[in-house]
Amino acid sequence: MRPDTITILGDGQMGLVCAAVLADQPPAPRIRIWGIDKGETQALQTSRRSPRLDGFELPRAVEVTSDEAEALAGARMIISAVPTQFMRSAWERFKPHAPEGAGVVSVSKGVENRTMLRPTQIVADVLKDARPVATLSGPTIAAELAARLPATMVAACDDHAFAQQVQEAFNPPYLRVYSSDDPAGVELAGALKNVIAIAAGIIDGLELGANAKSALLARGLAEIARLGVAMGAQQETFFGVAGVGDLATTCFSPHGRNRSCGEALGRGESLDDYLARTTSVVEGVATCRSVRELAKKQSVEMPIAAAVHAVLFEGLTPKEGIRTLMDRPLKRERVG
Amino acid sequence: MRPDTITILGDGQMGLVCAAVLADQPPAPRIRIWGIDKGETQALQTSRRSPRLDGFELPRAVEVTSDEAEALAGARMIISAVPTQFMRSAWERFKPHAPEGAGVVSVSKGVENRTMLRPTQIVADVLKDARPVATLSGPTIAAELAARLPATMVAACDDHAFAQQVQEAFNPPYLRVYSSDDPAGVELAGALKNVIAIAAGIIDGLELGANAKSALLARGLAEIARLGVAMGAQQETFFGVAGVGDLATTCFSPHGRNRSCGEALGRGESLDDYLARTTSVVEGVATCRSVRELAKKQSVEMPIAAAVHAVLFEGLTPKEGIRTLMDRPLKRERVG
Repeated sequence: MRPDTITILGDGQMGLVCAAVLADQPPAPRIRIWGIDKGETQALQTSRRSPRLDGFELPRAVEVTSDEAEALAGARMIISAVPTQFMRSAWERFKPHAPEGAGVVSVSKGVENRTMLRPTQIVADVLKDARPVATLSGPTIAAELAARLPATMVAACDDHAFAQQVQEAFNPPYLRVYSSDDPAGVELAGALKNVIAIAAGIIDGLELGANAKSALLARGLAEIARLGVAMGAQQETFFGVAGVGDLATTCFSPHGRNRSCGEALGRGESLDDYLARTTSVVEGVATCRSVRELAKKQSVEMPIAAAVHAVLFEGLTPKEGIRTLMDRPLKRERVG
Repeated sequence: MRPDTITILGDGQMGLVCAAVLADQPPAPRIRIWGIDKGETQALQTSRRSPRLDGFELPRAVEVTSDEAEALAGARMIISAVPTQFMRSAWERFKPHAPEGAGVVSVSKGVENRTMLRPTQIVADVLKDARPVATLSGPTIAAELAARLPATMVAACDDHAFAQQVQEAFNPPYLRVYSSDDPAGVELAGALKNVIAIAAGIIDGLELGANAKSALLARGLAEIARLGVAMGAQQETFFGVAGVGDLATTCFSPHGRNRSCGEALGRGESLDDYLARTTSVVEGVATCRSVRELAKKQSVEMPIAAAVHAVLFEGLTPKEGIRTLMDRPLKRERVG
């Protein structure tokens, strides 16, 4: 059964695209989208356009507001599309207005700084109730989804019935959602891939070619899967749509902030200079610090993440970083 | 210990590149390369250039011949770089001259028509002796390797000591070879990926974007891994360098005959017209027929291979093929 009233919290790219996808499947539920800035939400309500997603048009029926009480009244399903580092404060604000029992679907990728919590864990940690919280993730460049090009995602929740509800809620002809009972794997894959994406960008910046990029993808996948499994995720999730699928888009599509950051480093720009001139958050930079700590704590060997860390924070040049990876002792290939 | 005399059978792209890679690592062994056409090998011996690989220059020390006795006399390791469909007849010819005990390394990708044998199995089937036969495979666009850009491969053999010997033989600073005891997995991954590559090309021809391509990569990988495991391969090989690594290059690099064939189909060209105007063999077309049979025999569900088969041989349009994949019932994601 599809919920008849869905609220989207967050009017960034993923929030906007979720609204369009939900509206595309008849009978469309009542859809509201919340944004933090009153001026921006009013402009979006009137123009149906957003500076955050070129060429996008918000369907007429979608209601826009910056008032969380108004956004959430009567919601039967809540989509959380707030950037990971702002989730805790945002959900403190949403909490009094979130109708009891309405399941939450997080579409954010990342790990909270300091606590190392995953997005669904942040929501649960703030709400402290028994409602289901799912993650919905996969290779989804927002502009492509908005253009109704085919895509796949994974809806993962400990509560399988809720994962299936998410599948049914997001089911227009051009989107295929798989269900999974491994939210840890789906969310860790979505966060950890950004570190590998920086390395992919470095390879692009150094113009090292497709062989090197594909090697990075395979060996990067193996090492993030190892860390994920050590943290309780299922290995096969990393080899699915939300794992290798998302990683492939991140490594090969020219868009993407993390890959672009790596490319600038590969071309010789310093991290400080790059971050100073870019307006967007490069999540992989913070994630790389966390991964380094987690890998040590879990005693997991992660040579690529270590090399990215050394390039970002320890003064190693990108070329030297590649050399450390190629010069390692000859080994038997180990994926698990 | 590195063999001091290595013979390469086949002067196509991979044969040429193997010669250059082997010559690049001091102390270089004696290297001979054999080609079937006397005129072509004489031209190669003199000019050090080949029409098969633009910009390539064969190192001075490499000897070129079209005489198999001359090529193989005293060889301690033999690299087989003959296209899969010609391997049986070529090896019948090599057999009387192959020094006893010299291990063979196959760098061919594919499955023999009719017999469904893998390259290393064809060699063993012809030689009928106890020497080790390894496969060496991975994401290796020849022009990139020739330019000494970084790459990885996997050397797989039931005889682990020989796999390690191959690692040591192919070990210049820009190439990292992993060892494996799963030749079946490495060779099946290398052959089956070509069917997925055709589908990737179809997505490019229809301009469906990176989300769709990445979904295809992930789900295609899952289904070829399922078939491989049913045929005795190890699942993790498909998630390694010779599996997902090679698949990523095949799907995302604009070069590649199988992807290009799919792209032409996606743009509306018929298979017959495409094959008539192209000079190169599109291995994935033949492999797709075999895969269909194997999937039935092993009772393995392979929706992408089935859709490619329907587009290639059953008159389904590429658009309809995509639709059959997107309209399947909602499922729990299953990778293994």
